Amino acid sequence: MTTKSPLAPKKFPKLPEISGISIAVGSCGISKKGRKDLMLAKLARGTVIAGVFTKSLAAAAPILWCKKALKSTRARAIVVNSGNANAFTGHIGELAVKKTVKTTAKIIGCRENHVFISSTGVIGEPLPVDKIVKMLPKLEKKTSEKAWRAAASTIMTTDTFPKGASIVTEIGGVTVTLNGIAKGSGMIAPNMGTMLGYVFTDAKIAQPVLQKALAAAVDKSFNSITVDSDTSTSDTVLLCATGKAKNQLITNFKDSRLKNFLSALEILMIDLAQQIVRDGEGAQKFIQISVTGAASKRAAKNIGLVIANSPLVKTAIAGEDANWGRIVMAVGKAGEKADRDSLNIKIGGVSITKNGGRNPDYEESVVTKHMQGKKIEIEVDVGIGRGKATVWTCDLTHGYIKINAEYRT
Amino acid sequence: MTTKSPLAPKKFPKLPEISGISIAVGSCGISKKGRKDLMLAKLARGTVIAGVFTKSLAAAAPILWCKKALKSTRARAIVVNSGNANAFTGHIGELAVKKTVKTTAKIIGCRENHVFISSTGVIGEPLPVDKIVKMLPKLEKKTSEKAWRAAASTIMTTDTFPKGASIVTEIGGVTVTLNGIAKGSGMIAPNMGTMLGYVFTDAKIAQPVLQKALAAAVDKSFNSITVDSDTSTSDTVLLCATGKAKNQLITNFKDSRLKNFLSALEILMIDLAQQIVRDGEGAQKFIQISVTGAASKRAAKNIGLVIANSPLVKTAIAGEDANWGRIVMAVGKAGEKADRDSLNIKIGGVSITKNGGRNPDYEESVVTKHMQGKKIEIEVDVGIGRGKATVWTCDLTHGYIKINAEYRT
Repeated sequence: MTTKSPLAPKKFPKLPEISGISIAVGSCGISKKGRKDLMLAKLARGTVIAGVFTKSLAAAAPILWCKKALKSTRARAIVVNSGNANAFTGHIGELAVKKTVKTTAKIIGCRENHVFISSTGVIGEPLPVDKIVKMLPKLEKKTSEKAWRAAASTIMTTDTFPKGASIVTEIGGVTVTLNGIAKGSGMIAPNMGTMLGYVFTDAKIAQPVLQKALAAAVDKSFNSITVDSDTSTSDTVLLCATGKAKNQLITNFKDSRLKNFLSALEILMIDLAQQIVRDGEGAQKFIQISVTGAASKRAAKNIGLVIANSPLVKTAIAGEDANWGRIVMAVGKAGEKADRDSLNIKIGGVSITKNGGRNPDYEESVVTKHMQGKKIEIEVDVGIGRGKATVWTCDLTHGYIKINAEYRT
Repeated sequence: MTTKSPLAPKKFPKLPEISGISIAVGSCGISKKGRKDLMLAKLARGTVIAGVFTKSLAAAAPILWCKKALKSTRARAIVVNSGNANAFTGHIGELAVKKTVKTTAKIIGCRENHVFISSTGVIGEPLPVDKIVKMLPKLEKKTSEKAWRAAASTIMTTDTFPKGASIVTEIGGVTVTLNGIAKGSGMIAPNMGTMLGYVFTDAKIAQPVLQKALAAAVDKSFNSITVDSDTSTSDTVLLCATGKAKNQLITNFKDSRLKNFLSALEILMIDLAQQIVRDGEGAQKFIQISVTGAASKRAAKNIGLVIANSPLVKTAIAGEDANWGRIVMAVGKAGEKADRDSLNIKIGGVSITKNGGRNPDYEESVVTKHMQGKKIEIEVDVGIGRGKATVWTCDLTHGYIKINAEYRT
């Protein structure tokens, strides 16, 4: 285990029990360091599930299964192993998933397509599925409603701290709770990595509405972060709603009673997504990039992500250098409409550009002070329209090279 | 000046005289280190010119001028300064270009739109144009047909060696010569960088044909390399043909007499482009990625560039780690059609994958030996169609971070 990220939150937050969810974890022997590497979450009968998966065309075997299982709209169990991604493992990878699903369905007493699977770790190595299958019955007997922190720790790979968040909201005056855990330390980390997120709630919401809610929140959270621009073969976000809360069933996404829930879900998922950035490989600075004045939301997000993925911008920030010319470069490279002469770039709230050149009032010393902090705020107005978006990333440091170039040595 | 790249060619090649081209260089005082920073190339009356420029929407003032001037199809002078990019300099940047153009036209005795300008260096700083204007008459008096190496050195910024290439070919049995010089050490380097390329020939070719020839060769050369995925605000490639050779004028791109010239132009420009990669910031390894079996040429090139831009692939190579799982990841991320089960990845000629998983015959030790060399060859067949492309890049090392994060310190 490497040193904890300097950007880590002070402690793991308190995650309360959520009626209908119980979790157990164990060491089945996939992790070579004897770490906990297998998690089983049991979900109450009637739980509906929504999912969003990697767009990689080399998606791992568990992804292919989950996409199929999601059509059932229901879930009774989630099994996650770390230490091996079961990705690019061909036919035997698919057999391994089937075996895990079959065993889980049997011990839970549910249909196979109510079992969801994730694997994270090395790509291209056969998954030692027998170790998983052997341990699952033991886990099934010891699930607890309190094992949230253990679950967040078990799904870690190169992560340096477990990631969790919780929020309470209401639907039609009835209190509902959301808990989430996530892992990731690069959009993909080395051989060893992936972005996984699991959110659980007791809210009673119809599955099509839940799926829309998840997609909207993913767009604002996990799809608005980047560590290194690389896309995992295994990215997965699942949202499970047990329906144990006493709220009236919500069947329409536009239902005004859903508003607070949607907002709470977004807050919770942005929190988790930001924790992943804070654990970005080698990260020393947390960077927020807000783009305004773009032709559309989509354009704003694209500009934000091009800035966030620029190695020149990221290394400048690592060097605490207020090198705003590189932000101009990234805006130009994004290919979205932008008005050079209205372009307004701010760092730490200080306006740097004006009339297509450097602002005559710009004093670099103030911005230099901001660059020395741990949170860097960049604002870019491109002067075209009303589209806006905010994205998050971290700096590109010697630590990133060290972790990824010297991984096997 | 940093140490010369370990991937640099042994020496600068011999560039012969080209009838109709003469060059002078000098130190006008833009470079803070007193380096040579201004180049003037005089072109004989009747010279036609073709150009390709950055697609950045934040294109620098000289780019905007060159695009306009190119409509005249003729050129009598090229002025290049290093040390300042005259990019994102607003209205005063445009005035600086105008002043340089006007002065040059006057001393050469030509129309203003026959003068082409490039600037490379810091973004966002006003160009001290008076220094340029003051020195131009002196340069005009001392141009020589032999100053190729001096020209290649003058246009350098963070480059660690001057880049040049020459090739002799024939059109309809008549010998014609091509000389080229280029600079670049990142698609964009720090505050200080850009990709510039200038190719000169005595061939007699009509301008529309020359423009087509240039576009085709750029596609296979400068547009097939990447150092860090960042796009400069100033990228420029110009091709000038003086028409002093005795070949019959070529007016049709499909003319079979042009075939050898096109091929020579491509070879020369690939040579220059590879020299830029060999001088990539922090580069320790030169990487060639050949993609075959793609749905189209365009798809093949996209897959190649996604692999070439992946920080995880590049850091693995820096670490001499045959981490082929990251190549699978990059293929998946590219979003182009690929058949997982036919995917064939080779490193150093050794087949690593088979039937959607690791090739059972794969022996890593052989590939590990290849990874320790300076030239890394990656071949990827995606098993869909007949599209193919080759791209070049370098590894991502501590040197890159050092150059770009510690630039001002």
